[in-house]
Amino acid sequence: MIIVMKPHAKPASIAAVTRYIEVNGLSVHLSHGEEVTIIGIVGDKSKLSTDNLIMFEDVDRVMPVTESYKLSNRKFHPEPTAVTVGSTAIGPGTLTIMAGPCAVESETQLLMIARAVKDAGAAVLRGGAYKPRTSPYSFQGLEEEGLRYMQKAKAETGLATICEVVSREAIEAAVKYVDMIQIGARNMQNFILLKEAGQSGLPVLLKRGLCSTIDEWLNAAEYIIAEGNPRIVLCERGIRTFETATRNTLDLSAIPVLKEKTHLPVIVDPSHSTGSYKYVPAMAKAAVACDADGLMIEVHNDPAHALSDGPQSLSFAKFSKLTEELRPFCKLSGRSL
Amino acid sequence: MIIVMKPHAKPASIAAVTRYIEVNGLSVHLSHGEEVTIIGIVGDKSKLSTDNLIMFEDVDRVMPVTESYKLSNRKFHPEPTAVTVGSTAIGPGTLTIMAGPCAVESETQLLMIARAVKDAGAAVLRGGAYKPRTSPYSFQGLEEEGLRYMQKAKAETGLATICEVVSREAIEAAVKYVDMIQIGARNMQNFILLKEAGQSGLPVLLKRGLCSTIDEWLNAAEYIIAEGNPRIVLCERGIRTFETATRNTLDLSAIPVLKEKTHLPVIVDPSHSTGSYKYVPAMAKAAVACDADGLMIEVHNDPAHALSDGPQSLSFAKFSKLTEELRPFCKLSGRSL
Amino acid sequence: MIIVMKPHAKPASIAAVTRYIEVNGLSVHLSHGEEVTIIGIVGDKSKLSTDNLIMFEDVDRVMPVTESYKLSNRKFHPEPTAVTVGSTAIGPGTLTIMAGPCAVESETQLLMIARAVKDAGAAVLRGGAYKPRTSPYSFQGLEEEGLRYMQKAKAETGLATICEVVSREAIEAAVKYVDMIQIGARNMQNFILLKEAGQSGLPVLLKRGLCSTIDEWLNAAEYIIAEGNPRIVLCERGIRTFETATRNTLDLSAIPVLKEKTHLPVIVDPSHSTGSYKYVPAMAKAAVACDADGLMIEVHNDPAHALSDGPQSLSFAKFSKLTEELRPFCKLSGRSL
Amino acid sequence: MIIVMKPHAKPASIAAVTRYIEVNGLSVHLSHGEEVTIIGIVGDKSKLSTDNLIMFEDVDRVMPVTESYKLSNRKFHPEPTAVTVGSTAIGPGTLTIMAGPCAVESETQLLMIARAVKDAGAAVLRGGAYKPRTSPYSFQGLEEEGLRYMQKAKAETGLATICEVVSREAIEAAVKYVDMIQIGARNMQNFILLKEAGQSGLPVLLKRGLCSTIDEWLNAAEYIIAEGNPRIVLCERGIRTFETATRNTLDLSAIPVLKEKTHLPVIVDPSHSTGSYKYVPAMAKAAVACDADGLMIEVHNDPAHALSDGPQSLSFAKFSKLTEELRPFCKLSGRSL
Repeated sequence: MIIVMKPHAKPASIAAVTRYIEVNGLSVHLSHGEEVTIIGIVGDKSKLSTDNLIMFEDVDRVMPVTESYKLSNRKFHPEPTAVTVGSTAIGPGTLTIMAGPCAVESETQLLMIARAVKDAGAAVLRGGAYKPRTSPYSFQGLEEEGLRYMQKAKAETGLATICEVVSREAIEAAVKYVDMIQIGARNMQNFILLKEAGQSGLPVLLKRGLCSTIDEWLNAAEYIIAEGNPRIVLCERGIRTFETATRNTLDLSAIPVLKEKTHLPVIVDPSHSTGSYKYVPAMAKAAVACDADGLMIEVHNDPAHALSDGPQSLSFAKFSKLTEELRPFCKLSGRSL
Repeated sequence: MIIVMKPHAKPASIAAVTRYIEVNGLSVHLSHGEEVTIIGIVGDKSKLSTDNLIMFEDVDRVMPVTESYKLSNRKFHPEPTAVTVGSTAIGPGTLTIMAGPCAVESETQLLMIARAVKDAGAAVLRGGAYKPRTSPYSFQGLEEEGLRYMQKAKAETGLATICEVVSREAIEAAVKYVDMIQIGARNMQNFILLKEAGQSGLPVLLKRGLCSTIDEWLNAAEYIIAEGNPRIVLCERGIRTFETATRNTLDLSAIPVLKEKTHLPVIVDPSHSTGSYKYVPAMAKAAVACDADGLMIEVHNDPAHALSDGPQSLSFAKFSKLTEELRPFCKLSGRSL
Repeated sequence: MIIVMKPHAKPASIAAVTRYIEVNGLSVHLSHGEEVTIIGIVGDKSKLSTDNLIMFEDVDRVMPVTESYKLSNRKFHPEPTAVTVGSTAIGPGTLTIMAGPCAVESETQLLMIARAVKDAGAAVLRGGAYKPRTSPYSFQGLEEEGLRYMQKAKAETGLATICEVVSREAIEAAVKYVDMIQIGARNMQNFILLKEAGQSGLPVLLKRGLCSTIDEWLNAAEYIIAEGNPRIVLCERGIRTFETATRNTLDLSAIPVLKEKTHLPVIVDPSHSTGSYKYVPAMAKAAVACDADGLMIEVHNDPAHALSDGPQSLSFAKFSKLTEELRPFCKLSGRSL
Repeated sequence: MIIVMKPHAKPASIAAVTRYIEVNGLSVHLSHGEEVTIIGIVGDKSKLSTDNLIMFEDVDRVMPVTESYKLSNRKFHPEPTAVTVGSTAIGPGTLTIMAGPCAVESETQLLMIARAVKDAGAAVLRGGAYKPRTSPYSFQGLEEEGLRYMQKAKAETGLATICEVVSREAIEAAVKYVDMIQIGARNMQNFILLKEAGQSGLPVLLKRGLCSTIDEWLNAAEYIIAEGNPRIVLCERGIRTFETATRNTLDLSAIPVLKEKTHLPVIVDPSHSTGSYKYVPAMAKAAVACDADGLMIEVHNDPAHALSDGPQSLSFAKFSKLTEELRPFCKLSGRSL
């Protein structure tokens, strides 16, 4: 943390800042420039509320110089992590495809989709049982019944399974039926849920919040790891911007940025980010080309009659065509699909 | 809901859309323009997933023409609502000031602040006992102990009390100790929490999410009202934009927009939105001038040593000066403070 | 400028950065913290491209600690500036209202509007003769003919006049006919136009770009002042965000921020920012309450038939009612209208 | 254009809207739904200011149902266009790489870079002679002298050349020396410059504005085509969002969206969008994978000493490695590089 003083800051102002820091058991390092004086804080910053220093007289700026997340920070854990889900390892050397319906609608439907996505190359079956919907009047999911269908689909196909959780009850149910839980974009800063996910013992797919910076996202991951659960996969799913031609704006640059900042694997959801099946194949290929560790894609047996997110779901034929097209892209980076 | 067909849409495409709608028990209204054909859907749209129509051949756009929120919609409830909290009515004819520390730190501190904000004209004491913080390593609040201090402060000063809740446990505790609960910005689309807030029986302050549109905000309110609890006060607290000179961008235009769209009262939080005590007085005055029904302001006995949000907290002297300055603004709109 | 090294940066990396700086005639100041080493640059930073240092080995961040704008910076010019336009001084102690049609449509129309806004209390007549429109098929303005009508309106009413310019030709024409020129939001970073405005000799109203930060805005002002023209008035007119209920999001917090960062006066345009006449009065009052030095408001004799921006224009009756309502707000801050 | 009336709109209100439309020579089509009445406008909408209808009593919304751009719209020109620059055709079947320094610094430097990028596979040499810089105190370019060096580089290497223009003077100079002109992001809605570019006779690279929607971008292209110049290549270069880990947020989803909306070719600039050489290769591959028609990449002989944009420039070695890596990606889509 450094404190930048205003030009012509009074010596008494500099002394007041220094005193505040030293009283809290830290030490300072002064640097007098031509225009301004800079005060560096040396020691464990968690001991004082450095933010408060902005209120001191003649203080111009308070600037952090290190990240607040530590356990997810690649600076301190240089090797990339692989996260195992069922018999699949998400991370270096592979491309993991998670596919399935936005919402589980029935047992028959789910089994039909599970077989189709497995045949096409998916390793993980996704299916929503608890649906967070913008309007209270939209379909809200089958809840625990949906999870049971997920379990059956796993038994029949051998696919690993993932389901979004929205509450402690949902986590407790998920632990019984599925292999991985997902924290959705709207709950990325639901810190209670993050802690409960950390305690669940299951690997966690952490989606980026619609208006979350990469730093906030890694701090959210930190909440989970701090509970003793380092099995986290990040999922870029688009951020909110002024552009309305797509549902959200897929931030693919986040992939190389995350590869630099964290050791956690990161996958991409081209379905929710674009909001249209038409744009999913192009964005899926782009995600693989920039080295995402996986994809999460919505697939439905009959998109035109889906209860949720039909417009962005791929039919079986389209999904199968896409995975065929992705194989040579995987090969270019020496990865298996 | 209207469906805009592409130029030169085939008659078969128009027929397919028409059939999909009619099979679901609704009827259509066709309008052939010079350039495009428009299909209006007549009937109860909740019966079919109209979004899916975007996938039909030759369909160009699917456009809603009515809002999905109904109970909070002023079109159907023209009179503004007043929400009673303790002995205070938030709504037409008054300006309600909620003030207090970001986080409750101790009993002594809270009582000291409660007396000061009451003397200066506040009607509601705010104080955080459950703090959602970006980093897991920041102070997280005193939890139920903090709520007990709130109850004592109420007993001593007569102020109504409000506290943020982040989980069902927090709501269950809050019901015992405080008069109103707050759903924070990060939980605005935590739909489980919204439903639980709706069932709590307490009035709810619903803060706008950092990246939520006004429509999404009113849909979140709808979740609470749909549980039978219409006692909702909205709170504009800034949205996330590209500008970094303030913590968030206070969207004051939302006040007249909300006055048009909903009958619910709306207050403004100039502390969290700006992130700096220096900008709070100007924004508080602006909020009153554009007819916000109240203000939520962070006040601390010693901002420089606050455990949370010190930089945006007003000292007692600054808060007292501000309420004095606000009185004539209230008078201009015939309101009491 | 400070350079933050990565944890465990090699001494050779620190030496390389130091050498690069010293070779360019500047000196360094090293600060070894517990976690990272920080290198401060002392001297005239314009001598080297400090941005490039991010490419050096083991460099983590390059952070500016001072603003790049100097002439518009309040740190070096503590007294607020007043800008004279015709017989009006925009700045401390007054509230200046600029009003008129979005586009000048005819001589008769302009004179009618000029008389009406003068009667209601406006000091400056605005009127667009060169219209930058999103679509090439929209009305583009009367150009020089429109400026001549502005001159006539001034002769008849005594109002000062302002007109947007979009090119050097427009500036050359404007110099002949009006008292002040305006750089619109879309041209805020048209640096050629800024320099030409700086050379024009006329006072300049500089609107904020739709996606410009306050720092970029002040750097744009710096372009004009650097040409020897310090007569600049800033105009907040809304920024682009994800919210679509209003045309743009009026950033009123920018007013107190600017009062701190610059000595230049700042006014607010509630018409373009909200895009609807319904929201103009509330936002105009809010702007006055937070100490904006003036307002720019679109007024039209017949909004329903306006060739441009009808929906956000006030009728004479509405404008007159608004200025009446604004007078007591001005009095509260000891200002005349 | 359709007009949505409020629930319970009075017949007189509907009649007033109808009359306004019919008086202007258009006809209406009424659709009475269960909740609201919708009025469709049939005929040439350019004859009246439909936006104004929002002001009529009981009108709830005015919604366009067709795009305002026509000449660039794929609906009316289904075949993709190829734009020829020198001996290169940008469009279907090829991947065109434009590379070179952000700013032309000297003849020697430019020739050295031209040879290097040609050897690595670039077809077009980029080089800035007129630099729009945020601060007036930054390097502003060599102007016409820089263009002459571009001409020499072309003579020596056979590369086609492109240079940004910022004014009519710059266009007049560019016509003499280079093969293609570029309108930069900050000038995307400088409509005067767009018209002048349209009259120049040169192909135009039109960069997306930092806060421009895809629709606004295509309307900007429309300004150029409307002057009789259809030789336009679009360039996605990142939009402004709240994320600060990259300079801007590269919106790659815009590529498939544009392929659907327009027949014009589109390329991607991974240098300006990310702001860091570290992220350029990943984003370049992603752009090719999602079928961008080309790339614009900044390359410098000595990035650490570049006068402009050093941090995002690739060295010769890095650029050469990147083009090698891109070749197999091109092959996957059957394209040559």
